[in-house]
Amino acid sequence: MTRGLGGALLLLLAGCAQQPLRGTGDLGVVIERADARVAVVDTSARAIVASIGGLGDLSHASVVFSRDGRHAYVFGRDGGLSRLDLLRQQVVNRVVQAGNSIGGAISQDGRLVVAQNYEPGGIKVFDAETLELLADIPAEYGSEGKRSKVVGLADLPGNRFVYSLFDAGEIWVADLSSPRQPKLTKFRDIGKQPYDALVTPNGRYYLAGLFGEDGIALLDLWRPELGVRRILAGYGRGEQPLPVYKMPHLRGWSIAGNRAYLPAIGRHEVLVVDTTSWQEVGRIPVKGQPVFVMARPDGRQVWVNFAFPDYDQVQVIDTLEERIIQTLAPGKAVLHMEFTPRGEAVWISARDANRVAIYDTASLQLIGELPASSPSGIFFTARAARIGF
Amino acid sequence: MTRGLGGALLLLLAGCAQQPLRGTGDLGVVIERADARVAVVDTSARAIVASIGGLGDLSHASVVFSRDGRHAYVFGRDGGLSRLDLLRQQVVNRVVQAGNSIGGAISQDGRLVVAQNYEPGGIKVFDAETLELLADIPAEYGSEGKRSKVVGLADLPGNRFVYSLFDAGEIWVADLSSPRQPKLTKFRDIGKQPYDALVTPNGRYYLAGLFGEDGIALLDLWRPELGVRRILAGYGRGEQPLPVYKMPHLRGWSIAGNRAYLPAIGRHEVLVVDTTSWQEVGRIPVKGQPVFVMARPDGRQVWVNFAFPDYDQVQVIDTLEERIIQTLAPGKAVLHMEFTPRGEAVWISARDANRVAIYDTASLQLIGELPASSPSGIFFTARAARIGF
Repeated sequence: MTRGLGGALLLLLAGCAQQPLRGTGDLGVVIERADARVAVVDTSARAIVASIGGLGDLSHASVVFSRDGRHAYVFGRDGGLSRLDLLRQQVVNRVVQAGNSIGGAISQDGRLVVAQNYEPGGIKVFDAETLELLADIPAEYGSEGKRSKVVGLADLPGNRFVYSLFDAGEIWVADLSSPRQPKLTKFRDIGKQPYDALVTPNGRYYLAGLFGEDGIALLDLWRPELGVRRILAGYGRGEQPLPVYKMPHLRGWSIAGNRAYLPAIGRHEVLVVDTTSWQEVGRIPVKGQPVFVMARPDGRQVWVNFAFPDYDQVQVIDTLEERIIQTLAPGKAVLHMEFTPRGEAVWISARDANRVAIYDTASLQLIGELPASSPSGIFFTARAARIGF
Repeated sequence: MTRGLGGALLLLLAGCAQQPLRGTGDLGVVIERADARVAVVDTSARAIVASIGGLGDLSHASVVFSRDGRHAYVFGRDGGLSRLDLLRQQVVNRVVQAGNSIGGAISQDGRLVVAQNYEPGGIKVFDAETLELLADIPAEYGSEGKRSKVVGLADLPGNRFVYSLFDAGEIWVADLSSPRQPKLTKFRDIGKQPYDALVTPNGRYYLAGLFGEDGIALLDLWRPELGVRRILAGYGRGEQPLPVYKMPHLRGWSIAGNRAYLPAIGRHEVLVVDTTSWQEVGRIPVKGQPVFVMARPDGRQVWVNFAFPDYDQVQVIDTLEERIIQTLAPGKAVLHMEFTPRGEAVWISARDANRVAIYDTASLQLIGELPASSPSGIFFTARAARIGF
């Protein structure tokens, strides 16, 4: 009887031996790429609150969040898609959905998670709750039905997604309002080898950077009848191609006010582009080949990290003065940066220093450091409330 | 012994008989003004999950959220400031901090909550965790030390706040980096009777609408040395003043891309303003006197509600076509609207219909209705991640 009661007690306690209640608006994850795990972090306490492992190959991993901020979807390089519960601090669900994948996105209403795959080339659409496969959309092109790698996937209003076909030189828009009956709109001959892309924070413009030729392909999603046009002929590898040590990334964070700040491929420059005319209006010389060029949420600063051999440094651009105001050394092999939702701080991963460095963006002073094993991507839950993240 | 064990069991269970774990990114509150309470809502389930009462006079109430999304700060008309726990669904802390108050704001880092007061005129700064008073900044002006009503309070990057003095015709910026030693910057003679204000979503421009004369006072917070200038001489009551049934509200939600959509005071018009030149570039005729003019988060639509007698209707403007595409009738006495974080839906309070109506913003169809007692303001936790909300 005592044992029975004790057993019942243990069972009851186990049932409620859960994590304490807490809000999810200040949570995030840091990819620890060498250990197949993520650190769950709290941006208010500036602390690591948990570690969740068993996530497969996390080189080039990316993360999106459920609209309540409780669940993180981790897209691994090996095609693994894992749904993590940040409150119970465990993997809830995991599928290996492709052989080689480079990320994903979540629909405006939070009900669909989409993976963009290299192999087999295409996108796959999953129920965000169960990870049930709802649609498999191969990126077939040409007369022989070859399949292209997919890059530059972004969510759009109306449960639509836009992405680029690297091998085909095409941009596709998938309307997933009825996820089992996707409606595709294809834009062909947009340029050679789109390698990454961004959608502006309002979901209107899609910019695909071209690796195989100079320039960027621009699609006005509010006026798709105008088709894709070419901008920034001087953007790409240009007249004097330089060796490229690491491909830059493009995302909506490049936009600050009426300006886009874009990493020039191979050059030691950040391009300044007017988002009304889409003309280049300036270039800012920087320390090395830019990889991430990210605007602080208020747009007053742009932070830049670099490819090898300048990858231990980060530079800060003042967008009003259009000049570099600070050069920081967060540690060897800076791979990623993430601003807190309203931008008072930025978290920077230094892979080979095995730490995350936290800076105050007003004083530009280091205000915290967290140990992490080969950290790469850093992702905060506020992304759930944003278009194109 | 059995009773002892039972007691211990009950105690343990009480300790864990808490609400289940849940994310806070899809929570919000609806003010039920007649009953001194708020409904806690879930925007994923489109449901009311709890009711929290005892909040005093909630006419003209407003709400901000802690950076984790767990706590709501409710500013009541009677000067009550209540801190609610949305997970435990109860009032955690409450102070009556003024005789007559019209709202508040939360600092960029989430550590300070500031109330703007009519009586006694000024702002008060509280510790967001404890509601301890950290600073009391009277809005004194002129040689006799009179106190002005404070309006148009907004948070700025750098733990600063900007607000207007209705009676004094001044704009003040309070730097609360050291909250017990506020640093004030005062801009005088900005115009007569600023009645409300907004800061653009990037925290750069502060616009105070003037009731006592025509136009808007504009302050570029990135270049405060330029001082306050006057824009939109035709904005206000103008040559032919009309009776004003309800003062319109100004907030950052009026900005869509490079355009601001502002309610003309007394007129049946929405003004379209270029945010680069700050010149009026158009007027859109609408059904009645606009009160809230709110851009969908992607800026493609602007939704407008009206003062009496047109307050049972809402109109939707397409910002690309610059025309009204729909007129809806959500119910009598529409008082407020709130978009879901990425804008797929909008929640509308119809006070005299005692309900909240939920519309899909793509189809413009009614997709849900919730009962509420005289609902007014609707506030979702994603505001915590935004500047100027």
